Amino acid sequence: MQAIGVVESCFKEKFAIPRQPGLTPSAEAIVRLLPPYDKPDMVRGLEQFSHVWVVFAFHGTADQGWNPTVRPPKLGGNKRVGVLATRSTFRPNPIGLSVARIAGIETDDGVRIALTGADLLDGTPVLDIKPYLPYADAIDDAWNGYADDGSLPLLVNFSPEAEVTLAALADQYPKLRDLICEVLAQDPRPGYADDPVREYGMHLYDFNVRWRSTGHEAIVTRVEAR
Amino acid sequence: MQAIGVVESCFKEKFAIPRQPGLTPSAEAIVRLLPPYDKPDMVRGLEQFSHVWVVFAFHGTADQGWNPTVRPPKLGGNKRVGVLATRSTFRPNPIGLSVARIAGIETDDGVRIALTGADLLDGTPVLDIKPYLPYADAIDDAWNGYADDGSLPLLVNFSPEAEVTLAALADQYPKLRDLICEVLAQDPRPGYADDPVREYGMHLYDFNVRWRSTGHEAIVTRVEAR
Repeated sequence: MQAIGVVESCFKEKFAIPRQPGLTPSAEAIVRLLPPYDKPDMVRGLEQFSHVWVVFAFHGTADQGWNPTVRPPKLGGNKRVGVLATRSTFRPNPIGLSVARIAGIETDDGVRIALTGADLLDGTPVLDIKPYLPYADAIDDAWNGYADDGSLPLLVNFSPEAEVTLAALADQYPKLRDLICEVLAQDPRPGYADDPVREYGMHLYDFNVRWRSTGHEAIVTRVEAR
Repeated sequence: MQAIGVVESCFKEKFAIPRQPGLTPSAEAIVRLLPPYDKPDMVRGLEQFSHVWVVFAFHGTADQGWNPTVRPPKLGGNKRVGVLATRSTFRPNPIGLSVARIAGIETDDGVRIALTGADLLDGTPVLDIKPYLPYADAIDDAWNGYADDGSLPLLVNFSPEAEVTLAALADQYPKLRDLICEVLAQDPRPGYADDPVREYGMHLYDFNVRWRSTGHEAIVTRVEAR
């Protein structure tokens, strides 16, 4: 197995990555093919598809090993289920699978596939790209019996200071504000953490985004350049 | 990367495997987890899902290498597209991806996950099992711009001899007749082959299935034990 490409993503750390892909349509990523795979021929016809599967290696956590059972944050973090019954990053073979929308394909200088809605960490090694085949991959009658935890998306508000910063950044990072809203609405804090005073931070693009959170609302306090 | 399991499938050779997964619901496969992964804990909770992704190695063709472009049978076998724009088995990293319905999970003696509708070759090494997450994986508005080749499913008929054999096998292989119909309806012959006199053969379960085919009809001539 060799990396055929590498991800350039707005998500600079695992913590910020939504546990529910597809709910952050403003998330941007690029898969840049690496030599010798960076030939336009490799992706000829890929523009005929709306979405792709990205098969990748969990490089950030692969050296932490795995356990037969894990505690999914979605189940509150205190119930153990089998690792093969989850999409946990800590797996026997650290292979990840994400579907994303194709935003564009550039082949003028190497090959770059622009994606939106991908839950991919910056620097992720890509093992394969496969077209999403609606007739095979979109299963209308599939179900998931895990009870949803019933939590609603958080309301996301911004401090005046954060609004000023984001307004100044709007030209260069037009999707940053929406992305922050989408990520925080899903409450990336661990399931067992609910401390309204504690300030959390996450690394999106080149910024530290700081926020506090109650059970119902997230307040972005600051957006700082790193 | 290590195999965590191995596939036991009705499909004993690549030729018989449908190019359109999901159209052969009678296809049966079992993923048997291998030591040290064959612990019931590994799949605890998996019964909460209707479908799984099987991430596997294309073991039958991995040693044949790959090319930047391939000629998909679906496009008639004469148009080249990039390998990353197809689900071809000949890929830079020979990783396959199939979704299948969970028919049952046995954990009394090792771990066996029974699947239906899987397009998996017997003996396939399994790298990972992941639950199918409808909210993330079933994309309603995904599209595939490749023109369908417009071909209708073939009518499938059986010779009297084949009918007698199948009737005698019905108790032990209750899905065999349906499976043959589903596989041949998709016309597994190469896109460029259309010789009504030639007899083809495929290996399903422990049988050689022989048939002839016109453009509209497949006639099963014989079903023989191997």
